[in-house]
Amino acid sequence: MLQVSQRGLAMPLSPYRRLTPFADAAKQRGVKVFHLNIGQPDIETPPTMLAAVQQADIRVLEYSPTAGYPSYRRKLADYYRNVGISVTADDILVTAGGSEAIFFALMSCLNPDDELIVPEPFYGAYTAFSVATGVRIVPVTSYLSEGFALPPIEEFEQRITSRTKALLLCTPNNPTGYVYSRAELEQLKDLCVRHDLYLLSDEAYREFCYDGDYVSAMHLEGADDHIVVLDTISKRYSACGARIGAFVTKNKALQQAAFKFAQMRVSPPGLAQLLAEAASELPLNYFDVTKAEYQARRDLMVRRLRAMPGVECPVPGGAFYVMARLPVDSCETFCQWLLDSFTYDNQTVMLSPASGFYATPGLGKQEVRMAYVLNCDDLDVALTCLEQALAVYPGREVPVAEVAFA
Amino acid sequence: MLQVSQRGLAMPLSPYRRLTPFADAAKQRGVKVFHLNIGQPDIETPPTMLAAVQQADIRVLEYSPTAGYPSYRRKLADYYRNVGISVTADDILVTAGGSEAIFFALMSCLNPDDELIVPEPFYGAYTAFSVATGVRIVPVTSYLSEGFALPPIEEFEQRITSRTKALLLCTPNNPTGYVYSRAELEQLKDLCVRHDLYLLSDEAYREFCYDGDYVSAMHLEGADDHIVVLDTISKRYSACGARIGAFVTKNKALQQAAFKFAQMRVSPPGLAQLLAEAASELPLNYFDVTKAEYQARRDLMVRRLRAMPGVECPVPGGAFYVMARLPVDSCETFCQWLLDSFTYDNQTVMLSPASGFYATPGLGKQEVRMAYVLNCDDLDVALTCLEQALAVYPGREVPVAEVAFA
Repeated sequence: MLQVSQRGLAMPLSPYRRLTPFADAAKQRGVKVFHLNIGQPDIETPPTMLAAVQQADIRVLEYSPTAGYPSYRRKLADYYRNVGISVTADDILVTAGGSEAIFFALMSCLNPDDELIVPEPFYGAYTAFSVATGVRIVPVTSYLSEGFALPPIEEFEQRITSRTKALLLCTPNNPTGYVYSRAELEQLKDLCVRHDLYLLSDEAYREFCYDGDYVSAMHLEGADDHIVVLDTISKRYSACGARIGAFVTKNKALQQAAFKFAQMRVSPPGLAQLLAEAASELPLNYFDVTKAEYQARRDLMVRRLRAMPGVECPVPGGAFYVMARLPVDSCETFCQWLLDSFTYDNQTVMLSPASGFYATPGLGKQEVRMAYVLNCDDLDVALTCLEQALAVYPGREVPVAEVAFA
Repeated sequence: MLQVSQRGLAMPLSPYRRLTPFADAAKQRGVKVFHLNIGQPDIETPPTMLAAVQQADIRVLEYSPTAGYPSYRRKLADYYRNVGISVTADDILVTAGGSEAIFFALMSCLNPDDELIVPEPFYGAYTAFSVATGVRIVPVTSYLSEGFALPPIEEFEQRITSRTKALLLCTPNNPTGYVYSRAELEQLKDLCVRHDLYLLSDEAYREFCYDGDYVSAMHLEGADDHIVVLDTISKRYSACGARIGAFVTKNKALQQAAFKFAQMRVSPPGLAQLLAEAASELPLNYFDVTKAEYQARRDLMVRRLRAMPGVECPVPGGAFYVMARLPVDSCETFCQWLLDSFTYDNQTVMLSPASGFYATPGLGKQEVRMAYVLNCDDLDVALTCLEQALAVYPGREVPVAEVAFA
């Protein structure tokens, strides 16, 4: 009998996917659904970037070079230098989104059955990439009660085996919003140097740090061969649909391996590279404006959540996510109930249950991730929906006090 | 010590890559190099397709749906129905070029160490995809002396083992230009049904058949669950840089598996889908014009090649490639010599040595692939260069007559 491959069967479905039909059904019933479940920014894509594509004079839309247009790679190197990351165009491979950079990193650094240490909770697609590449994710749990700070470095060290090849972190973090400190990153770097591990740093949310300076893995010294930055323009310029990212490393052997995986797909998207290149023309205060907007939303969201009985949430220092513990038995059940059984003023809210962000079974059951990708007015209404919902939700066996401080 | 993964080391470098520095050096010396080595069409991308992107009103360049925009998938289904392929939008997953469709097919149909039977010579990137996915390619050799027709079906049958999961063919073929007949495809289909194999059909060059009707794997009956069409707009609309392709199958379990691999990278390129969608507005005779142009080039190329002493070449029925056997000891050496030691009227020509298209070591040593992606005038000059080069090339130990009829 014809069979789908084992890896095809093992691939996870995105956690959002299960809830989508319930959201669709709610909309069909005329209910307004506020989407706090996805990391799709509502901020306008800079019109000058779109104009760069729209005004380009193209006769034949040819393959771009495998590593991306040289002019774009040079401008991207300039951008990196502006944020204190000292690289040249040769250190950059342009990818189809941050996703392809993650894929190239796992393929180039690890063999099937090799181990990749990742602090959990983590971006759900990492699980999919690990299944696709045959790599085993070894999680180290970080805790909401500690604001999702880096777990003690001994926790990482204890999990290193002869199969451990790399450590993957995301800073500012999706889903927690946590921004790793320089001291934390130095600890991780030292660990990687000590044990010959790659340090893969997903920095998709670099521009969005609200409470202090941002530290890139590439700001660390003495470990150039260990460090790979996985990047994307998706969140930075609100251009998720462009599918332009980058695989950045000074390790020449690794860059060469990634290049060979890149040759397989010939070239990254062509039109979108023109858009990405035009980012170099943005005014210097571009990020100040978007950052101020996100920060206002974060502050509103944290303030509202903390005012809800039994809700616990740390203040996330970056990205545009808040993780919160809710006073319910199961956020999976609660999130579905929000869509199929609750409305407030004919409105409701869609959240991401956090269990999909944990590799350890059972963790995150009472947590949700919320993306602040709506303007403050809409966000305020969405949070009122949540507050009203929590006040009447029946699925709660554990007393609020115990949940909140568990 | 830090090491690149074994698969990263095992990945092949594109065969063009080795010759590129010699071409660059020739250009630096002021030599005009005619590129017959790559499948990058020179035909204009339809301006109306580019205009669709350029006139689009985009505020936020959002992720598109994972499977592609529904409107594009519906129009693509219409296109398929027009070419006699009866599918619906649900049977289509939009991919980042044909490359990603190949990747999804290997990942969804085969496990590591499973076997994939492929007639050789074949598109060089298949080797890269097999290394990346851990799949073993089992080649069945087709021969220039037979015009690269399908080898006897028994040759395929003999290679089937308990690990064989799929058969991959490309029609019209890259690199041979051969167009498989309905009878050949029926044989392959029967074989796949008899042995529970998938039939993966790379149809990137569907529109370019010069000597009769084109038959798609999806024109075959009674094997819907076995057949996957791997497609792309790259060659069809001269839009290689768009990176838009499609994974097409009526096998629901397989489509679901491919969808999960697609979720991993969130969405296919967004802007380029607008361009692809606008293909539905092209005049009905669009392909007649491009096809007539390619056919004139093919006829010119075959006529000129056959007039060169010792050169043997079949008439390719489709795509835009000609495979020829040259009266030289090693085409690898000859192609480099063309770039570093030969000029005619301060011009030379870059060709693809064919050994990179064979999996069996030693095959294709005296063959080259030439892409007719230049206008007839340039093509004529390029072929004169080749003719002059062959007349003076010293690297020939075997008498011409023996080579030509070996």
